[in-house]
Amino acid sequence: MTLIVHKYGGTSMGSVERIKNVAKRVAKWHKAGHQLVIVPSAMSGETNRLLGLAKEISSHLDSRELDAIAATGEQVSVGLLALALREQGIEAVSYAGWQVPIKTDSAFTKARISEIDDTRVVADLAAGRVVVITGFQGVDPHGNVTTLGRGGSDTSAVAVAAALKAEECLIYTDVDGVYSTDPRIVDDARRLSQVTFEEILEMASLGSKVLQIRSVEFAGKYQVKTRVLSSLTDPMIPLDEEMRSGTLITFEEDERMEKAVISGIAFQRDESKITVRGVPDRPGIAYQILGPIADANIDVDMIIQNQSIDGKTTDFTFTVPRAEYERALTLLEANVREHISSASVLGDPKVSKVSVVGVGMRSHVGIASKAFLTLSEEGINIQMISTSEIRISVLIDEKYMELAVRALHKAFELEKA
Amino acid sequence: MTLIVHKYGGTSMGSVERIKNVAKRVAKWHKAGHQLVIVPSAMSGETNRLLGLAKEISSHLDSRELDAIAATGEQVSVGLLALALREQGIEAVSYAGWQVPIKTDSAFTKARISEIDDTRVVADLAAGRVVVITGFQGVDPHGNVTTLGRGGSDTSAVAVAAALKAEECLIYTDVDGVYSTDPRIVDDARRLSQVTFEEILEMASLGSKVLQIRSVEFAGKYQVKTRVLSSLTDPMIPLDEEMRSGTLITFEEDERMEKAVISGIAFQRDESKITVRGVPDRPGIAYQILGPIADANIDVDMIIQNQSIDGKTTDFTFTVPRAEYERALTLLEANVREHISSASVLGDPKVSKVSVVGVGMRSHVGIASKAFLTLSEEGINIQMISTSEIRISVLIDEKYMELAVRALHKAFELEKA
Repeated sequence: MTLIVHKYGGTSMGSVERIKNVAKRVAKWHKAGHQLVIVPSAMSGETNRLLGLAKEISSHLDSRELDAIAATGEQVSVGLLALALREQGIEAVSYAGWQVPIKTDSAFTKARISEIDDTRVVADLAAGRVVVITGFQGVDPHGNVTTLGRGGSDTSAVAVAAALKAEECLIYTDVDGVYSTDPRIVDDARRLSQVTFEEILEMASLGSKVLQIRSVEFAGKYQVKTRVLSSLTDPMIPLDEEMRSGTLITFEEDERMEKAVISGIAFQRDESKITVRGVPDRPGIAYQILGPIADANIDVDMIIQNQSIDGKTTDFTFTVPRAEYERALTLLEANVREHISSASVLGDPKVSKVSVVGVGMRSHVGIASKAFLTLSEEGINIQMISTSEIRISVLIDEKYMELAVRALHKAFELEKA
Repeated sequence: MTLIVHKYGGTSMGSVERIKNVAKRVAKWHKAGHQLVIVPSAMSGETNRLLGLAKEISSHLDSRELDAIAATGEQVSVGLLALALREQGIEAVSYAGWQVPIKTDSAFTKARISEIDDTRVVADLAAGRVVVITGFQGVDPHGNVTTLGRGGSDTSAVAVAAALKAEECLIYTDVDGVYSTDPRIVDDARRLSQVTFEEILEMASLGSKVLQIRSVEFAGKYQVKTRVLSSLTDPMIPLDEEMRSGTLITFEEDERMEKAVISGIAFQRDESKITVRGVPDRPGIAYQILGPIADANIDVDMIIQNQSIDGKTTDFTFTVPRAEYERALTLLEANVREHISSASVLGDPKVSKVSVVGVGMRSHVGIASKAFLTLSEEGINIQMISTSEIRISVLIDEKYMELAVRALHKAFELEKA
C-alpha cells in the first residue's frame, strides 16, 4: 500500500460532471489499495470571478482580504469533491489549508509554505479515508489565510507529497505531458516520458504551461517524484496504463544521459533587446544601467557586456520581456543621459529566444557547435548567446523563430523516442 | 464611545453597489465615534448556488462537507466588505468564524454557539479598526467549520453583541421594522417603534419575516438591545434619525404596559386541523396519538382534548402545518386503527390561526372577551382557542382570515400610535 498525491487543475474541476469524473478516477486508485491525498484547484473561472468582485469594489486591494476572498474557491472545491467521493462509496474528508494546517509566511498573495503538520492527515489515511486538501493556500503564524499565488495548487500538492513522503505526486492537467517542443510549431514534437527537474526548470516556456515552476523547485528540493498527466482520459483507464502516461520528472540522470543528449527545444517569442553603446569600461557600469530596471520590477534575462576594443568604451546589451520594452527604454534614456553622457541607447523589440535543453549536454561536447551550425545552415543570424550547464540559448530575429525551432528539433532528432 | 454591532442581510449585500452602500453607512457610524463590529450575510443567492452545486453532486449530503461549502459565501462577503470599508478610508479587518473564533457544538447545519473568544476583536477595536465577522458560522471543538442554519447570521450578530457587551445590535434588513400586522392585509398597519422580545416570539408570523426567532431568544437570554431597521434608506441619513427608525426589541415592559395593551395581530394562514373522535378517556391517549406524529418530525401546534361527556370517550383535536396534513392523516389512520379501534379520524385542511399579542394583556382583563366579541360580530366561528400569558390565538375557517385580522386590528385600535 503506497501513498499517492493527486492534483487536479481548475479545468478538471470545472463542472459538476468533471468533479464526478475526478471522483471516479480517485475511486479507481483507492480500490487498487492506495492511500490517497487529493489537492484540487478552484473550479475554473471561480478565482477570476472572486478577484473581479474585489476589483469592482476597490482599486487599492488589501492583500490580506484578497487572499481570504480568493481562498474560498478551493474551499468549495474540496467540499464538492469530498461529496462526490462519498457518492462513490468512499469515506472522504476535506480540509482547508488552515485546518491541516499548511503553515506559510505572511507574504499575502505569494506566500511560501514553511511547514505542513501531517498529524490529522496521517490519522485519516490510517483510518482508510481519502483526504481532500485545498490547493493554493495556507495559514500564517497569526491565523490569517494566505495564498501561494497563481498556479499555487501545484506547489501545494508537491509540498503535501513531500511532507507525507508520498510515493508519487500526480499532477492531472489538460495536457498529457511535457513535449520536446511546442506541437503547434513542430508537427512531430514528441511527449517526453521523463525529464529531470533541472531540465524542466530550463524549459520554462514548455514546462510552465503544464506545471508551475515553483512546484518543480519544491519537487527538486524534496526529491518528490512528480508526474504530469492528462485528466481528460477516461477515468477508468487501467492503472498501469495511466502510470505509463504523461511525463515523469525524475532526479536520476545516469540512465538518461546515455540515451538522450537533448530533451527539448524551448523558446520565448516575445523578447526585446536593448543595447547601450559607448559605455565607459569601468567598474559599476552594469549596476548603473540595470539598477533602475530592477527597481522598476522589470525582469532582465540575457546580459552581455563585450570586451572594450579601444580600452575606453564598450557596448552593453540585455533582454527584457517585450511588454516591458518601452518602459525599460524610457527608464534608460533618462538614466543614461544623466550618468553616462557619451552613451547612446538602441533597441530591437522584435527578437525571440530559442533554447536547446538537456542534461546529456554535461557529458557530451559539440552540442553548441551543432546548434550554431544548424542555425547558420538556415541563414539565421545569432544576436546573443547565453548558456547554463544544461542549456544553450540564442537570441534571434523574431521572424526566424519557428524555423529555428523546427531545424534544431530535427537536427537533434527529437522526434525519435 | 459606544460599541455597536451591525448585521446586514443577503439582499443588503446583494451586489457590489449595495456592498459599497453598506460601507458608506458603516463609515458614517465610524466617523460619529462609535466602535463597530459588522456581521454580513452571504451575497443573496450565493448560499443557494453553493448548496445547488452540492445537491447536483450528491443526494446523500454529508453535513460536515455541506457546512464547509456553504460557509464560504459569508467568507467572501466579509472580505469584500472590508475592502469596501478601506475604500472609505477606514481601517477594517475581516474574520471567518473560525478565526475569531466563534465556538459551536458539532451539530453541522444547525450548530449552536457555545462561546465567543473576544480577545482578537477587542484588540482590533481598541486599535481603531472596524471588525467584519462572518455570520451564519463557527468552528467546533475539532476544528471543523459549522453553520448555524438558515438565517443564522441574525443569531451570530446578537451573539457577538452579547459577547462584546455591545450597546446595541442593529439588524439591517429589507423591511423597516415589525408591524402591528401584515400591511398587505391591513392598509393602516403601523410600524411598532418597540416590542418586547416575548411579544416578538409570540408574533412569529410577523416577526420571523424580519428576524430569525433563535436570535430573539439569544437577545432575550443575554439582554441584547436589538433593533430591526431598513438597509434600503439613504446610507447618509442622519444618525439620530436612523436611531429612531425601525423597531427596537426591549426588555423593559413597565412603560409600555401603560400605553399599549396589544402590540399586534399575527396569523398563520396555512394551518390544518385533525380530530380523532371516540377516543377512550384514559391516561396515555395523547401520547399514543401524537407520538407517531412527533416521530415523523411533524410540528404540532394547538392541541385540545375535550372533557368526555359520557365518561368513556372523548374527542382529541390538534393542528399541523397544511403541508404536513396528508402525511399526518395517513400516519394517524394507520396508528388509530391499530390501537384504538373505536375511534375515527376527521380533518380540515383549510383553517387559519389568528393571534392577538401584547404584554399589556398581563395587566388588563377583558382582552379575550373583546377579541371573541369582535369575531362574533363579524359572524366568524371560532373552532379552537389557545392562549399564553401574552397571546390569545383562535383557529378559524381560512376564508375569514383577512376579515378577522382587519376586525381585530381595528377593535384594538392598532392603527393609532
